[in-house]
Formats: sequence, structure tokens, C-alpha cells
Amino acid sequence: MGGLREECGVFGIISKENTDVAASTYYGLFALQHRGQESCGIVVNNGGAFSDYKDTGLVNDVFTADRLHKLGTGNMAVGHVRYGTTGGKGRINAQPIVVENIKGHTALAHNGNLTNYSELRRDLELGGAIFHTTNDTEVISYIITQERLTSDSIEEATVKAMSRIKGAYSLVIMSSSKLIAVRDPKGFRPLCYGVTEDGSYVIASESCAIDSVGAKFIRDVLPGEIIVFTKDSINYIDTHCNTEKQSFCVFEYIYFSRPDSQIEGKTVQSCRVRAGEFLAKEHSVQADVVIGVPDSGLDAAIGYSRESGIPYEIGFIKNKYIGRTFISPGQTTREDGVRIKLNVISDVVKGKRVVLIDDSIVRGTTCRRIVGLLREAGATEVHMRVSAPPFLNPCYYGTDIDSKENLIACNYTLAEITTMIGVDSLGYLSLEDAMSLAGEEMKDKFCTACFNGAYPTEISTNTYTNLYNQENSSKNIED
Amino acid sequence: MGGLREECGVFGIISKENTDVAASTYYGLFALQHRGQESCGIVVNNGGAFSDYKDTGLVNDVFTADRLHKLGTGNMAVGHVRYGTTGGKGRINAQPIVVENIKGHTALAHNGNLTNYSELRRDLELGGAIFHTTNDTEVISYIITQERLTSDSIEEATVKAMSRIKGAYSLVIMSSSKLIAVRDPKGFRPLCYGVTEDGSYVIASESCAIDSVGAKFIRDVLPGEIIVFTKDSINYIDTHCNTEKQSFCVFEYIYFSRPDSQIEGKTVQSCRVRAGEFLAKEHSVQADVVIGVPDSGLDAAIGYSRESGIPYEIGFIKNKYIGRTFISPGQTTREDGVRIKLNVISDVVKGKRVVLIDDSIVRGTTCRRIVGLLREAGATEVHMRVSAPPFLNPCYYGTDIDSKENLIACNYTLAEITTMIGVDSLGYLSLEDAMSLAGEEMKDKFCTACFNGAYPTEISTNTYTNLYNQENSSKNIED
Amino acid sequence: MGGLREECGVFGIISKENTDVAASTYYGLFALQHRGQESCGIVVNNGGAFSDYKDTGLVNDVFTADRLHKLGTGNMAVGHVRYGTTGGKGRINAQPIVVENIKGHTALAHNGNLTNYSELRRDLELGGAIFHTTNDTEVISYIITQERLTSDSIEEATVKAMSRIKGAYSLVIMSSSKLIAVRDPKGFRPLCYGVTEDGSYVIASESCAIDSVGAKFIRDVLPGEIIVFTKDSINYIDTHCNTEKQSFCVFEYIYFSRPDSQIEGKTVQSCRVRAGEFLAKEHSVQADVVIGVPDSGLDAAIGYSRESGIPYEIGFIKNKYIGRTFISPGQTTREDGVRIKLNVISDVVKGKRVVLIDDSIVRGTTCRRIVGLLREAGATEVHMRVSAPPFLNPCYYGTDIDSKENLIACNYTLAEITTMIGVDSLGYLSLEDAMSLAGEEMKDKFCTACFNGAYPTEISTNTYTNLYNQENSSKNIED
Amino acid sequence: MGGLREECGVFGIISKENTDVAASTYYGLFALQHRGQESCGIVVNNGGAFSDYKDTGLVNDVFTADRLHKLGTGNMAVGHVRYGTTGGKGRINAQPIVVENIKGHTALAHNGNLTNYSELRRDLELGGAIFHTTNDTEVISYIITQERLTSDSIEEATVKAMSRIKGAYSLVIMSSSKLIAVRDPKGFRPLCYGVTEDGSYVIASESCAIDSVGAKFIRDVLPGEIIVFTKDSINYIDTHCNTEKQSFCVFEYIYFSRPDSQIEGKTVQSCRVRAGEFLAKEHSVQADVVIGVPDSGLDAAIGYSRESGIPYEIGFIKNKYIGRTFISPGQTTREDGVRIKLNVISDVVKGKRVVLIDDSIVRGTTCRRIVGLLREAGATEVHMRVSAPPFLNPCYYGTDIDSKENLIACNYTLAEITTMIGVDSLGYLSLEDAMSLAGEEMKDKFCTACFNGAYPTEISTNTYTNLYNQENSSKNIED
Repeated sequence: MGGLREECGVFGIISKENTDVAASTYYGLFALQHRGQESCGIVVNNGGAFSDYKDTGLVNDVFTADRLHKLGTGNMAVGHVRYGTTGGKGRINAQPIVVENIKGHTALAHNGNLTNYSELRRDLELGGAIFHTTNDTEVISYIITQERLTSDSIEEATVKAMSRIKGAYSLVIMSSSKLIAVRDPKGFRPLCYGVTEDGSYVIASESCAIDSVGAKFIRDVLPGEIIVFTKDSINYIDTHCNTEKQSFCVFEYIYFSRPDSQIEGKTVQSCRVRAGEFLAKEHSVQADVVIGVPDSGLDAAIGYSRESGIPYEIGFIKNKYIGRTFISPGQTTREDGVRIKLNVISDVVKGKRVVLIDDSIVRGTTCRRIVGLLREAGATEVHMRVSAPPFLNPCYYGTDIDSKENLIACNYTLAEITTMIGVDSLGYLSLEDAMSLAGEEMKDKFCTACFNGAYPTEISTNTYTNLYNQENSSKNIED
Repeated sequence: MGGLREECGVFGIISKENTDVAASTYYGLFALQHRGQESCGIVVNNGGAFSDYKDTGLVNDVFTADRLHKLGTGNMAVGHVRYGTTGGKGRINAQPIVVENIKGHTALAHNGNLTNYSELRRDLELGGAIFHTTNDTEVISYIITQERLTSDSIEEATVKAMSRIKGAYSLVIMSSSKLIAVRDPKGFRPLCYGVTEDGSYVIASESCAIDSVGAKFIRDVLPGEIIVFTKDSINYIDTHCNTEKQSFCVFEYIYFSRPDSQIEGKTVQSCRVRAGEFLAKEHSVQADVVIGVPDSGLDAAIGYSRESGIPYEIGFIKNKYIGRTFISPGQTTREDGVRIKLNVISDVVKGKRVVLIDDSIVRGTTCRRIVGLLREAGATEVHMRVSAPPFLNPCYYGTDIDSKENLIACNYTLAEITTMIGVDSLGYLSLEDAMSLAGEEMKDKFCTACFNGAYPTEISTNTYTNLYNQENSSKNIED
Repeated sequence: MGGLREECGVFGIISKENTDVAASTYYGLFALQHRGQESCGIVVNNGGAFSDYKDTGLVNDVFTADRLHKLGTGNMAVGHVRYGTTGGKGRINAQPIVVENIKGHTALAHNGNLTNYSELRRDLELGGAIFHTTNDTEVISYIITQERLTSDSIEEATVKAMSRIKGAYSLVIMSSSKLIAVRDPKGFRPLCYGVTEDGSYVIASESCAIDSVGAKFIRDVLPGEIIVFTKDSINYIDTHCNTEKQSFCVFEYIYFSRPDSQIEGKTVQSCRVRAGEFLAKEHSVQADVVIGVPDSGLDAAIGYSRESGIPYEIGFIKNKYIGRTFISPGQTTREDGVRIKLNVISDVVKGKRVVLIDDSIVRGTTCRRIVGLLREAGATEVHMRVSAPPFLNPCYYGTDIDSKENLIACNYTLAEITTMIGVDSLGYLSLEDAMSLAGEEMKDKFCTACFNGAYPTEISTNTYTNLYNQENSSKNIED
Repeated sequence: MGGLREECGVFGIISKENTDVAASTYYGLFALQHRGQESCGIVVNNGGAFSDYKDTGLVNDVFTADRLHKLGTGNMAVGHVRYGTTGGKGRINAQPIVVENIKGHTALAHNGNLTNYSELRRDLELGGAIFHTTNDTEVISYIITQERLTSDSIEEATVKAMSRIKGAYSLVIMSSSKLIAVRDPKGFRPLCYGVTEDGSYVIASESCAIDSVGAKFIRDVLPGEIIVFTKDSINYIDTHCNTEKQSFCVFEYIYFSRPDSQIEGKTVQSCRVRAGEFLAKEHSVQADVVIGVPDSGLDAAIGYSRESGIPYEIGFIKNKYIGRTFISPGQTTREDGVRIKLNVISDVVKGKRVVLIDDSIVRGTTCRRIVGLLREAGATEVHMRVSAPPFLNPCYYGTDIDSKENLIACNYTLAEITTMIGVDSLGYLSLEDAMSLAGEEMKDKFCTACFNGAYPTEISTNTYTNLYNQENSSKNIED
């Protein structure tokens, strides 16, 4: 069910000729919609002339046929979907960001989070910089622009900029003549590329977006790698590759990415099925049926069923029209939310011992309501299995895993949570199993900070506060 | 996947006191959204004063919080979701229809189709009637109004009206003081009712809508039955019950209704699983994996897997944001449609013999594309199983099963279709099995017209034509 | 300034060929916008197939280029602008009304008000009629349809219907092949027609709409006249002409119609200038400057200036963007309304004795505020002159002149009103002068009911109440 | 009638307490709407926290009650209306611009045009600056931010910045605690301030906006003056005052400003009336009636009438609903535009010799059509008088007076123009009279560049090109 949210998805395309790159970007963003529902944007590059449109809303609300048409044709485009807080600031913070510097226009789309954002921004401000947004993407633009003044090319400037920015970043950068993929040296977030039959190259956060435009997946962008695409050439820059230990976010497998995407050679679905198998081994139980919470618990439920031999069934119907702005009119509370979104198929659970699989428990409230629905429908026992270890620490690398006070696992014991959510038993995936989801070769390549606090980068003491309080800060009041 | 469309869903509520009946109706319609996506409407009755809002669009697009609020509170409400053709006529044909006659306001919401619509309308016009819509609902309003002139109550008028109207109709009627459920004597379309904890009665096309407002399901409205709810009483009128043999639409189980709804004592999902089991018996095959086309093929796939022992897997990811107005910009064709909506999880099918389950084949084009996606992803064999018998005849009872020229099964042999859609084998559910989906006791109670042409009512020779050409007819040109 | 509102404007066009009649109707309605700002609609007739669009809002908000395009081409069209109450009922009551009867489609656009609406509706309901609106236009449709059953043509039916309907009505009726102009025998409301260079005939409430489509004005439709246009012929029916004494609404000259329109051979502006001249004779005063309240007081101010020799000046600037939905946010009250809409040009009035001309005083509140603005700006004396006699009686013929309790002149003496609105002197146009506005030949042809209560038709005792309470009535509660 | 457009209007307010400053700004912008119809924006400052909303569209379309409410209360606000080109760039260029620098948030609203924009921007880019817009306002923000690094206050930074920026600028600047009015040393554009009864100070482009919020006009901001308002103090900085000769734009009197505004001690209307009087002296003619083209020709027509003794009449009705997005559907051309907007009152001109007054002739096309309407309506002679001298040079100070090829007066003689627009005689206001419009004391204080090419500032040779081609430039293509 999930209370977690990914921050962003990025997409870029470069073709040999002037074509409808806006339409391809639209399809790509639509496939990445699960990575961000707050705002989206597309920038088209037609021989150095940029046209763009960004707004809050889902991809197919923001981009009507008319608006796509107005973007015109081009030989390159960059797109972005974003999760973020609602409100007035939403539109100004939509990406891709488009700026003009001494060398012409540049567009940037960014997925991740800089851990030295505050320091970088302060330094820039001390140099006379002005900021229009509270995005770290604008900071990246400035850094690259500054380095550009003493570099021979935008890629050289990008290499230098990567020595100054810290944290998680998967970027697509578009200049007048180049499309550039950049992944941070620790490879926190995914980024990959592919090619279409007519020779257009496509960069995307996930391979499902490459599939959606009919392109062939080539490979992941390597941690630290810069790939520079022009109309006629591809240039791979590995200056920052293998300079640091990889720290890929395991939640990309468990929750964020789409099941049909492949990352580091594994489809996300197969890793989720494996999580279910691990759970069945670790936390076996006598039961009559295994059901998953749609959509992200279904694969692990199949895995649990396969390993345990307990039959898999579809136990919930999720209203497929809920997509967007479901309003809660009148006296209705969030309680109703679950009822409207999910309904139990009573046949499946009535008089039965149920194994219920979900991918995470954040605050526990949604979970308690779902268990309540099963009890109402006549389940005699409910055994909850969670296909991830418990969260114990906030994330600074581009997800919204919250501060400790809101994480149920930080504040209650397993026994207490079992009681609170009303289940007969509760089992989490072990950290070790989580590390094994994608096979032995990935075992040491994950970030485990949210589980065990082992942050792979230095964390500025006030990073977290700064980041989320930026908008309302008034740095001084004498001005 | 389906190319079929249900025509409508209806909802009504009556409470003891003035409450937020608009919100309940909104939830109910949201749960019935799958029955009609073209337009929707809600009418609130506050002590005889009616307020209403109707428009084209999905329930949560049409009804913003502000619009629901403007409808005000009341002790009764009626709602409707409708499938229909697009275009200028859309809004005027939205339901519920609200009219005023000598006895005050009446609202009607209708699911079904009158087979003697043309005759009734002509007779009314000969008597001086004027029509604002091309809905048969307006004809029903007139007939009840006419009968009301010589009846002591609206229910007496309704009993008389039922002797004049023919075909399929599940109605919710709201007068100033009564809420009335009406189901045609053959019981073509579902209709049921329930009650909330605080004593409000709820009428709905399907039980999932009753669940969605937290009410308890009581039972189906019987074929031919009229149930009259007032603030203080319930009156059951069985004048038209058991006057005709039941002809329930089997496609309500196979395709139209939501899996969590129960009809005639069976959940829809269990009937679909049973269809899969029947298919496995009838059309067994050596294979490695069973997958269903989301969403309506999934249950039958589980049934096929269970009966055959071939493992069930999730083979497709359906983009969950596709909901509504997905536009196809630029050079893209309908081909792309499938790619954007569905993506194959290649791991699941690569190098495997696949059993593919869907609920129907209408024209065959969508089917061929899906099979193509599986082949591309590396499936070595694709065995298609369809959880319904082939369509051979148009439907006149409220679905859009098309004229013969567009039905693939009318024009090609099984072998030809097998080749056309590119599968290694193809098997349909037998008519006999279809009749057994909901158990022995329902076996003789289905309409089988679309499969074998045995129409349970007389069909006016020009019914079909009339109905669909109504809008553009200019009856005479001397006026 | 005015607190009065006209109820409607009508427009129709018939051309020799299929052309963009929707665009012409759009222009015509735009020119008639002052006659109704609540809703508008256009119906296009393409060889008997009707397409229509209606909604609440101004003409150029409702009709985007896209919507006009969707109406398609045709050889006839009818349009309507309407003033009415806001709220949910708005859209359903928008005109033209389009209905289908035994002879095909008919569209009706109506300006006026039936005085026997309640009786007619009741009779129709007793015959089994159902109503979708609370418009008297729907009643007219029914009556014509009923008469059509025993008539050879729609025009014959219209002649008969005119014997049954009473009150004020200027109609444009469009059948599959005819466009018909109808004006009630007393000629309460204006209606005229013209012809374009390419032989299209145009019917409109006012000649300014005929000008706006580049047509030549021909003449007013006569009181009681029916004019039937077909592609090839014009037929004038005078059965109801000269059957009753004319009762033209003098307020069409004083306030409702556009100054550039001509009615009964006089331009509206010239009549208003004459009103100013009359006022100067009746109510002369020593003063330094004459100013009018924009827009409808300007012409009379020029007339006053001309007759009196006191210089005319532009004393107020009216914000020209106020057009539509000016919102009053925050703590602001209606007081602000005047300030935002009107600003005084202080130079013009500072230290001067001002003659202030407006066309009416309804409740007196707006007037008092305007006088206040002049005082603030330094006017030493303010002498108000009103270019109409005082209202003393409600209107039942299609305007919203209110019930007596809200008419200031019904409840206070001239001296009291002078004090209440804060002027040094106050003078109304005399009834005799009002009757002379349009020249001697029109002198006996006006309705004077709102001034002296001499209603030219019988008024049903409960007409007024019925009409305005219709929507919320629940006729009986047993149903 | 005019083909000229002002570029912008600015507004600011500072109050003692937290109040509904957004509503006041809304009223102020509404009064300034004539200065810019393309986009608008409001920024509210609540103790250093800024909230803003900007979009393309008119003030009362962009700011619904809901959106104003979301801006919240505050003790300061800044607003802007802007004229600009349509299209994708529109929204990003809307003002006020809100940026954050080392000292916190700053909002800027700007009316005018920097003549050294290109040089300043290039220098900033060479220093590593990035730009989000193509506004010179962003350049001003940067310059002030740079100077702020070495200044003790924002006002000190502003004084320094004024030495670097050249051209026309009337600014409202809002920092966390200060509201600042700035007018360039030549005083090209107007700027003034006032105070409300409760002690709130208001800055606006024109006094009509001060009136609209019920404030008292105090005086114009002096050329070169900076006025710094805080909650508790006002500080007047005259460092740049009297450093240059004033060059006020005479078109503010003739065309741009609202007649009820006062500038340099004169109401705009009185100057326009005087222009008419001058015209009557310079270009007398035998005629029967004087009419003005609404709205900006009316005052001069009254002046001409007064001086000449020829009667003034209202000869045109302008459709008052035209305000905004009037669409031209179908086959209609711009020709129709005039017909729809303006209609002649034939009585007034039929058989008469007409003096027609307008404020300018830009390309001559609109003018020719208006004259055509008068001829059609029966005018026997048309004598055109223009209340401004002919344009012969482009403007670089914030209006869109076009390049020479589009200015009719640059390419044709008086006799040729007379023939082209179809009049019997044509007379322009002389340059000397134009300089005398606002009295002797203003005579040497006007910019006359558009009439005689005497530009009061240095003009960079490529200023004009740069400015208007900015958006599509791709500075280099190697990046």
C-alpha cells in the first residue's frame, strides 16, 4: 500500500532528425508516472531553440494534445515527473529547469537529493547568486555554469561539477547540441539508456520507459558515469566511475520501481517474488490463503505462496479510477479512504487463516484499517508479512522516509506493533535477505541507511531541517 | 481487455434524516464507475425540493468538493453513471433524468434498454409529447406520468407502466417522498439493496457500491419486483414477479460486474475462477506458465492454474494512470495504445510456453497485439483461452455487443481466428460451461442471445437501427 | 447605472446554402449580450439534423473557437442570450430549447414572459405532460406541438397557439425546414429582421445584431405578425395583427436596448437625448456642469446640456474590464463595488454645481454612493435628474422590476428620496414626456404599467408568485 | 482606438498590521489593467515569508476568490500587470519576479525598459549568472543582489544599482521588511504614492489605482527618487534626483494612462481635452458634428467641440463585453473585428460633415475601416483629427511603438495618408502643442523621441534587435 514516495523520474531523447520528440517524451513520462505525481514538464530543443511546458498535475492532465503540439518538433527533448508538496510553490519547482547562461540554453532534469545543498547554495549566494526555486537542481545548474566559464565544453564542466556536488543524483542535461546522462558515483538512483530502431537514443530512470517508446534497453548508466550523446556521436566519460563503493537504494526493488523494469540485470518483479519466498522461509505459518495488498504486495504474495504451498488468491479489489484527485467530501474521514479504494472479496477470506503481504509499514494506520477490513469479512486469523526490513532512520537521498517520530518501528516493539495493527503474527524481511533480493553479486552494493543508519555519505548536521524548511525561512529580517 | 461496454450503473439512498446523501451517492457511483465512464449525475431530494448536477466525465472529475457541496443535504438521492457515445448530445442525455409532472418532481436512473422504445415513443409523440433527449428513460418517465393520472400512487402507476414497457430495465425512481427500486420481470440487469447502521436504505446496480458506503448487503431485487422505500416504511410489490422466465445477462459475471460484487448469491470473482477451471478441463495444454490479461482475465487465469497445475504468474504490468483521457499525440497509432497501457514482464514469459487468458475476443485486433508483445518478449508458444463463448449476435438489452459484421467469430472459423491473432491454440468456454458458472441453480436463468441468438423477448425488426440512428433522424422535412 | 435587467435576446439566421451560420449567430448574440448575461446557446440546423450547445456564461466564454467549430455548418441557426437567476438550475434553463415531436426537431428562442403560464402548465400537466425546465418556453413548445397534431403546418399550429398564450413574447422558431419570427399582438418586446448581401435573412431582438453580421435592417416584425422564412420563400401571416392595442415597453428606449439600435423608426440614442432635453425643460437648475452616469446616462446628459446650455463633461471613468465576474474578495463590501467600477474625475466636479443624469433609481443605494463620490471629489451641489418616471409597480412582461417593497418610489416621497440619496434637488421625467420620447406617432403605443399600474393584459392574481417560486415548489407530497 | 500598448503597471502596499493586502493589490491591479493585459501577479509578504501567484490572463480571470484566499494575509504586497507577447514564454515572464539571495527573499515589479540590458546581461553571464527569464527585471535583481554584498542595506544597494542600469524604470521592490519605490532619474514612466486612512502606504503606476483602494494620493515619486517604507518609517533618498533632465513620456497623457489619473499635477483627461482644443485651433474645418473614437478619442472630441463650437455627439457604440478574448470564428477576418467592436449610430452622422477624433494612427488599417463605417452610415464628409503628432521613430523606453517599416507616417506623406484612410482632410497635433498639453511648467520635460528621434539616452546599436530576438537566440552551438 505504501506511504513512501519516490521524488522523481527523468527522461531524455535525441534523434537523428527533427521529429515528434515531445510525443516520445510524453509516453516515457507516462510510464514513469509512478515516480512522481505532483508535477511534470517537457522541454523540446529544436536546433538550439528551446520550448517548454511545465505544470502541477499528472502527465495526461498537463499535456493535452494541443499543448504537446505547441511544443513543436525537435531533435532532442527532456522530461521530468516530480513528487513534491502541494501548494503555490509547486509550479515554480516543476522540472526540467531551463536556464540560459553565457553559452546558451540548458535544461536539467534531476532525480535524487544533494546532501551538501545548503553549503553549496550558501556559497553561491555569497557570490551574488539569486535563486528562483528551492530545488537543488538550480544549484546544480549554477555549479555547472560556473565550471563552464573555465572549461572547454559542458561535459568538462560537468566532470568538475561532480567533484563539488555530493549525494544522490541521476541527471539528464540538455544543451543546445548535446544530451547528457549523469549518475552519481554511488549510484543511489537508477538510470539507464536504450536505442530505437531509427537510431534515436533514450535515457530514462527506468527501463519500462524505454520499453514504452518501443526502444531496446542497452544498459544501466554506471555509477559515476557521464554519457554524452550528440546527433552523430556517443562519448563515455568514466572519470568518476569506481571512485566510490556503490550504494543503490534497495527500495527501488522493493517498492519504487515498476515490476517490469530491470535494474542491474534483474527485473524488479523477480526480486519481489524472491522477497516473498524469503519471507515464507523466515516466517512460516499455518494458513489457508495468501493475499497481497495491491499493487505492490502482489508479487511477494505469489512468492510466499510458491515457497509455502499455501494457495495464492486475489483478496482485494482496488478501484482503478482512484488514480488522482479522489476527493473526500462531507463528513467523511481518511478512514473512508481505504474503503473507497479497496474492497475485500469476502469469499476469499471468510472463515480462513490469511497471510497478508505488504511491502512496508510506515505509520501503521493504513495497515490497521486493511486488517480491519479482513476481520469484518470473516478472516479467522491474519498473519502479516512485510517484504522489507523495518525503517529506523530517515533518508537523505531522494525519498520521503520520514523523521523518526513518525516511523512506527522506531517507537514500538514488534509485539506492540502486532497488537496495534491487530494481526495474529507479524514478520519483517531480514536485512540480510533484503541484501540478497537481487542476487549475490548485488549483495554489498546497497544503501542500508534507512534500516541500520549506515549512511554512505557524510550528512550535514542540519541537512534535513534545512531542506524541508527552506521555503519559509527568512534568512534575516533587516533587509 | 475487452471491447465491450456496459451501458449504465444506478444508485439510490434514503435516510431517516437530512444528511449528506450526495456524498454517499458520490461514493456509490465511484464504486460503479466501471459500468459507465461517459457521464454521471446526482439528484438530491430535500423535502421535495430537488437539486441536481450532471455532466460528461468521470465521477471524480465531474463532482468536485464544491459541486457536491452545492447539491446540499437531503434525505434521498439518486445517482447514475453512463456509457454512451461521445459528442454534443452527451450532456443532454446524462442521467438521472429529472422531470416535473402534475404530482411534482420525479428523478429516474435507468440501466438497460427498452426493446419497444420506438413504438412507445411514436405513440407518445402522436399524443402530443415533446422529447428533450434520445434516452428511453424519458419514455419511461412519460409512461409513468400518464399512468399516474389514473392511479392513486406512483407505485400503482409504476405497476401499470411495467405492463407497457418491454426489455431490460433496472430503475431507481425518486419522487418527492419515495425512493423506488424496479427490476424488469426477466431480470436482465442486476439490482440489489442494503442498509446502513443508521437505518438508511441503499439501492445499487452492484453490491460493491453498497459496500463502498459501509452498508450491509440485504439481497438482490427480484426480477419483476418493485420495492418502495419511504422514510418510515418499505413496501414490496410482486405483481410482475414470476411472470416470466429469468434471463440474467451472463456477461455480468464474465466481464461487466466488479469481482467483489455478489449477484444471485455468488461473488463475481468466484465465477470467473470457475470459468478458468472449466477452460483448463475443456482445453488442456502442456505449458510452463499461465498469465491473465489485466484486469478481467486475472481471476480465470488463477482458476486455470489451479485446475491445471501450471504455475500462475503476473505477466503484464498495466499502467495504472491510464484511467481516462489518454491521448495519442503525434504520429502514434492505436498500435501504440497497447504498448503504453500494457508492458510484458519478460522474465515471466521468455523461453516459455504460455497460456494466455482473456475474457473475450470482439474484433481480434487488441488480442493480436497482446500476443505480439508476448512473442517479442520471447514466449515460445502462446495458447489463448477465452473465458466466454464466442459472440455471434448483437445484444438489445443494454450492452454494446456490436452488429455481426464487426464480430470476428461471426465471420471466421476457429482455425482462421487462431491464425489471425497469431496463437498456437485457441479455446473458448463452451456455452454449457458458461451456463454453469454461477452454479446449478442459475443454469437455466441466463440470457444466451449473444451466443446462440435465442432472444428472450420479441425484437422489433428495426429496433437496433432506430436506436442508434435516432439522433440524426429528421422524421419529415415539411415542417 | 441601473438595477434593472432585461430577460433575453433572440437571434436567427437562414441562408441559401450550408455556411458558417454558427459564427454569424455568435456575432449576433455578442451584439445582444446586454440583454442577458447569465447563459447563452446556439442551435445549428443542417438539413434537419440539429446540433446545439448551451451553457451558463457570457457568449465569448461559452463559445470558444473549438465549440463553434463542433456545431458544424448549416443553413439555419437560432441563438439566445438569457438573464436569469444563478445556480444549479441555470444550465437546464438555458435556451434555445430543442425538442423533438412527431414532426421532428424544433428549436425555440423566446424573449418575454407569458402571463397565463401557470394555467397553461397546469392544464398540460393534467394531460400527462412532463417538464424538464421551469421556462415558459417549454410551455410554448408543448402548445405548438399539440396544435401541430391537427394542423397542416407548423405555421398554422403557431397561429392557433397564439390564441392560447397570453403576455409578452418575441420568438424565433426553427423547424427542420423553416425559420419563423413571431411577435405577440401587443408587441411588448422588440423584434426585427434584415437581409445580407448574399440573401441570408436574419431575425434579431435588436437592429444592432443585424448590423453586427453586416446585414441590412429591413423593418420591425409587426405586433402579432408571423414571418415564415424557408430557403426559397418568405410568408407573412397577419392573422393576429391589429387585434390588440400596442403596448411597447418604453424601457427598451430608456434603458434596455443598445443606443445604436433602431425601434419603430427611431434610434434608441436619439430618444435618450430627447429625454435629457425634456428633463432640462421640466427641471431646470443653475449649475456649472452636466455629467451622466455611464453608460446609460450619457446620452440624456448630452440632451440636458444641449437644452440647458450647461457644459457637458465626462465626469466618471468606468473600468472597462469589469465586464463579468468581478469578485469582491476579503472584507470588502458592496460599497467597494462602486469605487472599483467607477472613479470620479475630480477636475470636472471640484468646486462645481453638478447636474447628474441617470436612467433610473430602483432601490437608491447605488445612487447614494455615486452622489457620495461626487461630494468627496469636491462637488458643491449635486442635482439629480432621472430620465424615466418613478417605478411604482412590478412588471410581468419580461423584466425584473421588483415587487413594491423594494421600489424606493413606492415607499418614500420625493423629498424623502432627495434626502436619502443626498442630493440638492431631484427631478424625474414626467410620464407624459416619457410617452413622447419616440415622437408623437408612438405616444399611445406604450405599456405604462410599471409607472401607473395600467396593465395592458389581465394579470392572474398569483402570477408573480408562481413564476418566481416555481422551482422550489413541491406540488404535493404524497407522491 | 490605438494600436499602441503600454508594457506594464506596478502596485505595492505596506500596512501596519497583517491584513488582506492581497485584496487591495487585486483592486489596484484591476484599476491598472489598461497598462497590461497579458499576465499579472501578486506577491504577499507575511513577516518575511512570501507567497505568490502569477499567470497569463486578466486580473479577474487569474485571481479567483479562492486563489486570493490562498495567498493569505500579510503586511506587504506587490503586484504587476504586464503586456507581452503570447505563447509558451508568457507565464515564465510574468511578474513580480521573486528571487532569494543571501539576504532572503526579494520581489520586484518593473515598468519600463533598460537600454543597456544586453550589456548588463552579458556581463552577468560572464560572471557565471544563469537566467530563467528574458525579462530585464531579472537583470535588475542580479545587479541589486551583487551590490547588496558590499552594502549595508538594500536601499544602499539600490542607489548603487541605479548607477549601473540605464533607461526607463519605475520599480516596486519588496524585501522581507521593506517596500521600496524607485523611479529612474529621467522619470520616463509615472509612479506615485498615497496613504489610506489606517496608515497603509500605497505605491502605484497611476493615481487611479490609489483611488481604487480608497487611499489619498500624496504625490508623484520624483525622477531619480527612492522611497523606502517600513512598518514604522519612511525614508526619502534623493541621491539620483536632479541628476538628469526629465524625459516624461507624453503618451502617458495622450493614450496610456487612465483619464482619471493625475500626473505631475494634471489629470490626464484635462490634457486630452486640451489636445482637442489645440487641434480645433490648428486644424479648423466647417462641420456639423464632432465625434470621438471610443474610448481614448472622446475627451479630445469634447475639447474640439468646445473650442470650435461644433456640437459634440456620441457617434459610436463600443461593445462593452469585448474586453478579452474575443474570438473570430470561421471565415471571418480582422475586418469584422471593427464591426463587432464598434457600431455607428447612423442618426448622428447621416447627411452630416463629421469631425472624427482619434489619439493616434499607427498602421492606418483600423482607421480606414472606421472611416468606412461612417461613410456607409451616410456621412457626407469626414475630417480626421489626431490628438498626437505622427510617430516617426521606435521607442526603447517601454512601449511597443514599432520599427519604421510599420509606421505609416514614416512611409507616406500627409496627402497619401489622407487618401489611404479615405478622409476629406487630416490634421495631426503639432509637436509644440503636444509639449504644451500639461501646461507651461511641463513643456521641456517630455521625451519626444518617437516624434523627432531626439532620444534622451544613448541607444545601443543593437538594443532593439537584441530585445525582441532574445528568446530564440542560441548564442553558440558547440555547447
